[in-house]
Amino acid sequence: MASPLIVTFVGGAGGRWHVESMGAVAGEGLPLIAGLDVVEGKAVEADTAAGVVGGRTPRWVLRGTTSNERYVERQERAALVARQPPLGRPEATCAALIPLHKSPAWWDLTQDERRVVLEDRSRHIATGLEYLPAVARRLHHGRELGEEFDFLTWFEYAPADTDAFEELVGRLRATEEWAYVEREVDIRLSR
Amino acid sequence: MASPLIVTFVGGAGGRWHVESMGAVAGEGLPLIAGLDVVEGKAVEADTAAGVVGGRTPRWVLRGTTSNERYVERQERAALVARQPPLGRPEATCAALIPLHKSPAWWDLTQDERRVVLEDRSRHIATGLEYLPAVARRLHHGRELGEEFDFLTWFEYAPADTDAFEELVGRLRATEEWAYVEREVDIRLSR
Repeated sequence: MASPLIVTFVGGAGGRWHVESMGAVAGEGLPLIAGLDVVEGKAVEADTAAGVVGGRTPRWVLRGTTSNERYVERQERAALVARQPPLGRPEATCAALIPLHKSPAWWDLTQDERRVVLEDRSRHIATGLEYLPAVARRLHHGRELGEEFDFLTWFEYAPADTDAFEELVGRLRATEEWAYVEREVDIRLSR
Repeated sequence: MASPLIVTFVGGAGGRWHVESMGAVAGEGLPLIAGLDVVEGKAVEADTAAGVVGGRTPRWVLRGTTSNERYVERQERAALVARQPPLGRPEATCAALIPLHKSPAWWDLTQDERRVVLEDRSRHIATGLEYLPAVARRLHHGRELGEEFDFLTWFEYAPADTDAFEELVGRLRATEEWAYVEREVDIRLSR
């Protein structure tokens, strides 16, 4: 288990990833951008991000850290580890960044209650497993950083798996867990 | 459930809290300090902390955020809420700051395995309950902030409850959970 990695998503006029579409799924959206860079491993503040990404002034900066899993149990971890691909596969030229903010009612649930909603009733982990190894995924936590989004999930997949990815997000959005999502933005990208 | 609150512990030559004793329980200690300030609600970096605490140059700065509970279940939360006192009671003139860092083996456990060690086998939550309402407690998470300590726990109690507090920390340190503690510093304070 690696130490938490801080990751900064820098949105602006350009970047390694080109924005194909973006919009709000729930709540307030984000200012539109044309490109995105993903910067790993150091805290990048808004006023220094321009230097990091080659002199462009960012439109916005979102930050999160990887962390230990909060819900996965041993058998589930074994299944995930056996099937999940790494980020950066050459063929995975499509990506999605989905920032999420959950409601106070979610955070007021206890750990065991959140697990019941997330997996026993919403099948979040089991559903994700069905789309492996096609869809690579990395979850970043922003809540403890004081960020506006609790979670930033980053996905990478090949163009041929676009329909599968759409199905995955559609299934998750139909679950009981998603009743606790107050704000969600969906950004699709390509490189 | 309140949003996470960032809290900065600023150690140096003086402060609202006077250091009565400090030392390493496991692993490397911290540079000795004479006083401590607890600053709530904003990120205080080392180079600006001096201004916050009245012009003194800090010896060290530790940061953490409050967060949702990670292990407590509904019945346990109800028992805690019914009995736990707030910080800042006038009679609670004794305090302890206990920074902890857990091993990679801890973070490699899954959520359910950590719960089994923490509560089913180590009785961390049940033991803490026995010392309520005498000992007020607030847990701060540093791991996602990239801090050197995973946890900073702050305790406040009246002088008459000093022996009870010693017993509490002694019992916790004797548990299976504490086998996962790689580094622990114990700082006792008064005001």
